[in-house]
Amino acid sequence: MKLCRYGPKGSEKPGLVDAAGRLRNLSGVIDDLTVDAISTLAALDPDTLPLVEGTPRYGVPVAGIGKFLAIGLNYADHAREAGLEPPPEPIFFTKAISCLNGPNDDVMIPDGSSKTDWEVELGVVIGKTCRYVPEAEALSHVAGFVLVNDVSERAFQKELGSQWDKGKGCDTFGPVGPWLVTPDEIADCQALDMFLDVNGQRMQTGNTGTMIFPVAECIAYVSRFITLHPGDLLITGTPPGVGEGQKPDQIFLQPGDDMRLGITGLGEQRQRVVAFDLAALA
Amino acid sequence: MKLCRYGPKGSEKPGLVDAAGRLRNLSGVIDDLTVDAISTLAALDPDTLPLVEGTPRYGVPVAGIGKFLAIGLNYADHAREAGLEPPPEPIFFTKAISCLNGPNDDVMIPDGSSKTDWEVELGVVIGKTCRYVPEAEALSHVAGFVLVNDVSERAFQKELGSQWDKGKGCDTFGPVGPWLVTPDEIADCQALDMFLDVNGQRMQTGNTGTMIFPVAECIAYVSRFITLHPGDLLITGTPPGVGEGQKPDQIFLQPGDDMRLGITGLGEQRQRVVAFDLAALA
Repeated sequence: MKLCRYGPKGSEKPGLVDAAGRLRNLSGVIDDLTVDAISTLAALDPDTLPLVEGTPRYGVPVAGIGKFLAIGLNYADHAREAGLEPPPEPIFFTKAISCLNGPNDDVMIPDGSSKTDWEVELGVVIGKTCRYVPEAEALSHVAGFVLVNDVSERAFQKELGSQWDKGKGCDTFGPVGPWLVTPDEIADCQALDMFLDVNGQRMQTGNTGTMIFPVAECIAYVSRFITLHPGDLLITGTPPGVGEGQKPDQIFLQPGDDMRLGITGLGEQRQRVVAFDLAALA
Repeated sequence: MKLCRYGPKGSEKPGLVDAAGRLRNLSGVIDDLTVDAISTLAALDPDTLPLVEGTPRYGVPVAGIGKFLAIGLNYADHAREAGLEPPPEPIFFTKAISCLNGPNDDVMIPDGSSKTDWEVELGVVIGKTCRYVPEAEALSHVAGFVLVNDVSERAFQKELGSQWDKGKGCDTFGPVGPWLVTPDEIADCQALDMFLDVNGQRMQTGNTGTMIFPVAECIAYVSRFITLHPGDLLITGTPPGVGEGQKPDQIFLQPGDDMRLGITGLGEQRQRVVAFDLAALA
C-alpha cells in the first residue's frame, strides 16, 4: 500500500494512493496514519474508500515519529566526494524531529547559512521495537519505506565543531514522503534507483545497491546502541552528487532554487528553496 | 514548585513535593505532568492535595519530552580532563529519547561496553518555543530545571567514528529527576553546587558558575540551529570528575556500582549499575 497524510499542515488526514494513482480518503477507517493504524489496514479494499478531489498538499506520511536517525557516508562514492574514507562501521547522527516537513513544502535557508545542501535518501519507518535485533530479522521490523531529503547545512555540520547534528536539524530540513510504502510493494530495497535534480539539472544519480551497509545492517547496527521504537524514522545515506561534492566549485542552495527528487516506487518530492523568514516559521 | 511523576514505570501519576518535603498527589488536578499542565498550577494551594503514603518510585518528572539535546564540554576543567580545548562556541549532540529513565531506576551497562561513565548535569525543560531566541530572553522560555545523569559509553562515543550520539542514547542512559523545579525556586541557575559519588566516593564536584557558556547562552545558541519546543529537554554539560578523566587510570562503571548525584535545589538521584540483560529491557 501507498499511504499518506494530506491536507493543511497540522490538520492532515490519512489517505491511500490506489493502484491507479488516485488519492483516497482513509478518515472513515482510521483517525490518523500511525504505525499502529497501518497494521489494521491489511484487509482493506481501496475501492471502497472515497476519492479525494483536487490536489491537496501532502504532509509527512506517518504521524508520531519519535526519533529521526540518519546513517552517514553510506555510499562509497559519496564518502569519497566528501573527502572521507568509507567508514569501517556505520556512522549515525540525529536529525531533530522539529525539522520534519511535508515532501513538497518549502525548504528554508537558515539564518547565517551559506552552505545549505541536498541529499536524496531512502528512509525506513520502524514498525516493531528493534533492540539488538539481528540483521537477518531487521527488515521484518519495518513498517514502510519513505523518500527523504536529508537537507544539510555543511558549515553548521562541519565547521562549528565536530558534531553533525548542528547542521542537520534546522526547521524544514526533513522533507518526508509523499508516501509511506509498505514492504510488500518493495521487492528489494537494495535495488532502487534514486535521483535528485536542482533547477532541472541532474545532480544525484544512484541506486541503493551501492550502499556500503545495507538497510538491514543499518537497522541492526543502530539497534545495538539506540533502541528503535515503532514510528521511529531511520534514513540510510545518500549517493554521490551533493552540492559540497561538485567540481570545480561546490554548489549550494539559493533562494528560488527548485529541488526534485525520487526513488523507485516511493514517489517524488519537489521543494522550492526560500530565503530565511523567521515569521514564516512560527 | 517541585513537581514530579511517581509510581510504576509507564503508569506514573503527577505529584508535587510540598515545602515540608512531603509527596502529594496531583491526579485530581491534572492528568499528567506536562509543560502545558504546569502553567495551570500557579494558583494551587499544595495543602489541598492528598498526601501520598509510602515511598513510591519516581519517574521522569515531565511527560512528553520530544527532544533530548545536550551541550558538550561546557566546563573548562572537564574539557581539559577529556583532553580537549574548551570549544569556541557550544558543542551539542543528541540523546535518544528512548534512553529516558527514572532518577533512581537501574542503569544498565550495554552489551559490549567497557567504558560506561557518569556525568552530573543541570537540565532545563523548555516551556515556550525557542526559535532564534535572544540570550536575554532565553531563561523566560524555561518551564523548569531538572537533575540529569548524562550516562555515556566512551568507546561507543569516541572510538567507533566521530559522532557522539552513538554513546549517549543507550537504554537507561538518561535518568531525569526526581523533580522538575519551577524557575521561581531557582534564584540563580549559574550558582548551583553539584556532585556525583560512585560507591560513596566523591567523583564530581562542581558549580554551574563555572560553565563556559551559561544556560541562557546555550538555549539561545541551540535555537539558532534547532527549534526547541515545549517539553524539550536540554542538558548543559558536566563538571570535572568523570570516569574517563580519572588519574592515573580511568575508572568506568561495573555491575553493582552505586551512583548518587545531586544539584542544589533539584534533589538527588541514586542508581544501581546492573549488567546487561536484554530481557530486563523489554
